[in-house]
Amino acid sequence: MALAKILLCMDTDPQPSVFDSVVALDAGAGQLLRHGGVTPADVKNLIHGLMFTRGGDQLHHAAAIIGGSDVVAGEQLLQAAKQAFFGPVRVSVMLDSNGANTTAAAAVVCASRHLPLGPETIALVLGATGSVGQRVVRMLAREGADVRVASRRLTHAEAVCHRITAAVPGARVTPRSTTDTDKGDLLDAAHLVIATGAAGVNLLDSADLKNAKTLQVALDLNAVPPAGITGIAPTDKAVNKEGRICYGALAVGGLKMKIHKAAIRQLFESNDRILDADEIYNLGKLLADAK
Amino acid sequence: MALAKILLCMDTDPQPSVFDSVVALDAGAGQLLRHGGVTPADVKNLIHGLMFTRGGDQLHHAAAIIGGSDVVAGEQLLQAAKQAFFGPVRVSVMLDSNGANTTAAAAVVCASRHLPLGPETIALVLGATGSVGQRVVRMLAREGADVRVASRRLTHAEAVCHRITAAVPGARVTPRSTTDTDKGDLLDAAHLVIATGAAGVNLLDSADLKNAKTLQVALDLNAVPPAGITGIAPTDKAVNKEGRICYGALAVGGLKMKIHKAAIRQLFESNDRILDADEIYNLGKLLADAK
Amino acid sequence: MALAKILLCMDTDPQPSVFDSVVALDAGAGQLLRHGGVTPADVKNLIHGLMFTRGGDQLHHAAAIIGGSDVVAGEQLLQAAKQAFFGPVRVSVMLDSNGANTTAAAAVVCASRHLPLGPETIALVLGATGSVGQRVVRMLAREGADVRVASRRLTHAEAVCHRITAAVPGARVTPRSTTDTDKGDLLDAAHLVIATGAAGVNLLDSADLKNAKTLQVALDLNAVPPAGITGIAPTDKAVNKEGRICYGALAVGGLKMKIHKAAIRQLFESNDRILDADEIYNLGKLLADAK
Repeated sequence: MALAKILLCMDTDPQPSVFDSVVALDAGAGQLLRHGGVTPADVKNLIHGLMFTRGGDQLHHAAAIIGGSDVVAGEQLLQAAKQAFFGPVRVSVMLDSNGANTTAAAAVVCASRHLPLGPETIALVLGATGSVGQRVVRMLAREGADVRVASRRLTHAEAVCHRITAAVPGARVTPRSTTDTDKGDLLDAAHLVIATGAAGVNLLDSADLKNAKTLQVALDLNAVPPAGITGIAPTDKAVNKEGRICYGALAVGGLKMKIHKAAIRQLFESNDRILDADEIYNLGKLLADAK
Repeated sequence: MALAKILLCMDTDPQPSVFDSVVALDAGAGQLLRHGGVTPADVKNLIHGLMFTRGGDQLHHAAAIIGGSDVVAGEQLLQAAKQAFFGPVRVSVMLDSNGANTTAAAAVVCASRHLPLGPETIALVLGATGSVGQRVVRMLAREGADVRVASRRLTHAEAVCHRITAAVPGARVTPRSTTDTDKGDLLDAAHLVIATGAAGVNLLDSADLKNAKTLQVALDLNAVPPAGITGIAPTDKAVNKEGRICYGALAVGGLKMKIHKAAIRQLFESNDRILDADEIYNLGKLLADAK
Repeated sequence: MALAKILLCMDTDPQPSVFDSVVALDAGAGQLLRHGGVTPADVKNLIHGLMFTRGGDQLHHAAAIIGGSDVVAGEQLLQAAKQAFFGPVRVSVMLDSNGANTTAAAAVVCASRHLPLGPETIALVLGATGSVGQRVVRMLAREGADVRVASRRLTHAEAVCHRITAAVPGARVTPRSTTDTDKGDLLDAAHLVIATGAAGVNLLDSADLKNAKTLQVALDLNAVPPAGITGIAPTDKAVNKEGRICYGALAVGGLKMKIHKAAIRQLFESNDRILDADEIYNLGKLLADAK
């Protein structure tokens, strides 16, 4: 009898994510072991439960995902999981707190279809201190883009820049306060804007957009009215509006779901995958190319 | 491959109900996502996890149940679940805290087999402030009966009457204190008595019953000795004792289980069912008629 | 349709054991209902959820396991579970907090292959106040051996001796402090030593062993370097080293896993099994004989 595909769900929130669980089941996980309120101190024992129960050649039938609303807390669990491994005795792990990696990968891949991402690219990320926003910044920075990291509070934006610089050598990221800075300045010379703010909060309005002469691609990841970027509907998928290619949250969400499920399937292919920002972004590019 | 039937179990107690989980699995749920200590603030995120992971035509493959020892706390979760829906993007939900709706429906349906329920009916509900008791009162009130809502504390009985009156327009409910009122007064002219008190607590004894000249049907939902109503055994099923039809807890429990499982199955038939007192009582009547 | 084999997992730690869950699934449990932070007060309601949901002839399709890091806390849950039964209406339950019973059974069975256990046997258990250590002492005492119960703190060793004496009539157990007592004294005349201390803590070194002239069998249940007993590797399986038969943690672990899975399967064979130290040790002996 084949061993069940067991997925350990470690969530930093008190109630583990239902979203993540449904996607995992639909992607082929057979049994979920769901844990909420997980702290780094809990991780070793949980992960060892996967590592020491089956033979070494069966380790790929178990894996772990890390979820929750806070990707920084999730990163600490991932670190603890890696430290729990004994050489080749390990299991695959995906970090995707709040869908941060899969959603960010989908957004950046959508943008890259219309705009070559590289050192010439100037990008503005609004709401950049959220879990998704941080990962969008990181993926853009890895492509070499010049990224404006915008948040209401400058100190929060600075903290994100600090973390991204540590994770991505040579990252070009600049903290910006949306409270102290004119929207015109934020958008000046920018080619790409990705809004990843809270649900139902407008971050750019029609007047802001009118003056954004260099803007070629705009993505709004907010699905709840009012729009994060005025004029973009959740279902917009590569729609040309006044010369700019626009994507809404549901269009990005379709690709996000494909990436998410493919990532879950990868976890069970071998026992040594660590799926974080880079790996999930690469997976997103592969899936987009395959289409 | 068919999608798994996923049932989200939201429980207001710290440890989610094992009873509810076993019944759900036996009624066809394929995967349970069980959550304890759920508060209204948690519900939106949990329910959205079911709503936003699958296509609209697949929504009926997921559903939610609300459990726990306190039906009033459960009602708050149901309210929060309804508020989390976006128009047709929703899932079916059943409220059955402490088995309140399914047990009450079974009890009232059993009574209705022997006594037409309507404006002429005078009913006494003992232990009426518990989760099951409240629902028994509500279902009887909906049938138009004149219901005496009895509890040790009058203020608790009054609170229940207040809630029932709000839920059932025209409800005729009267709060009664079992501490201050003579049992003879409580039973005076009553046709039906349903005892839903705590396990192992006697609420009516032989002397009380002797004087209850008009009483035609008596149900005792307590399965733990001593009996809630002296002389009724848990297995009594429509047994005539001194001219009265009697039901014990296990006899009512058999029908309760049928209603409970049928309700779970209904949740997966479409994505727009809300199963609360009225719907589950109607389902109980249908099942009783079908026999 | 056959009813699912449902296993209720009651864990005294906040996060229920992943190890126990994986083993249970691999041993044939179909659905796990996992609960962390379980206290004795929670048990009745949880166990009743298994007892009162299916017919009496179906009770063996559900069972419970008790886990967590503290076997004494686990014993309290087992006691509460027994008190929740109503005569023949009950379910099978296994206590194996921290793998204490299955690991101890495997260790003592390994020792018994090389050394007849009985009144003539003098055994030293190091780290005897841990969950596994307590059970090793208990199983050796039950075989009639003279057991030295060694711990850093004498009071802890005394407490263990007190509990074992209550559980095993006629037990010969002596508390010893490893802080105040010379290792030579602890080992003097001993035939068997089993080290069950914390991971990565050395309890006996080469010099200690050199003087242990009567020692015939040595087991080290610590798998993390440095070894609990110097010179024993985790994979040692009945290896003769300087005239002593040695077992390491992984060798004992192989048998432990067989016992653990066989115990889970027994839970679903009938509804009246209580698997604690004695039963699991007997099962271990049966499995060893069958090989």
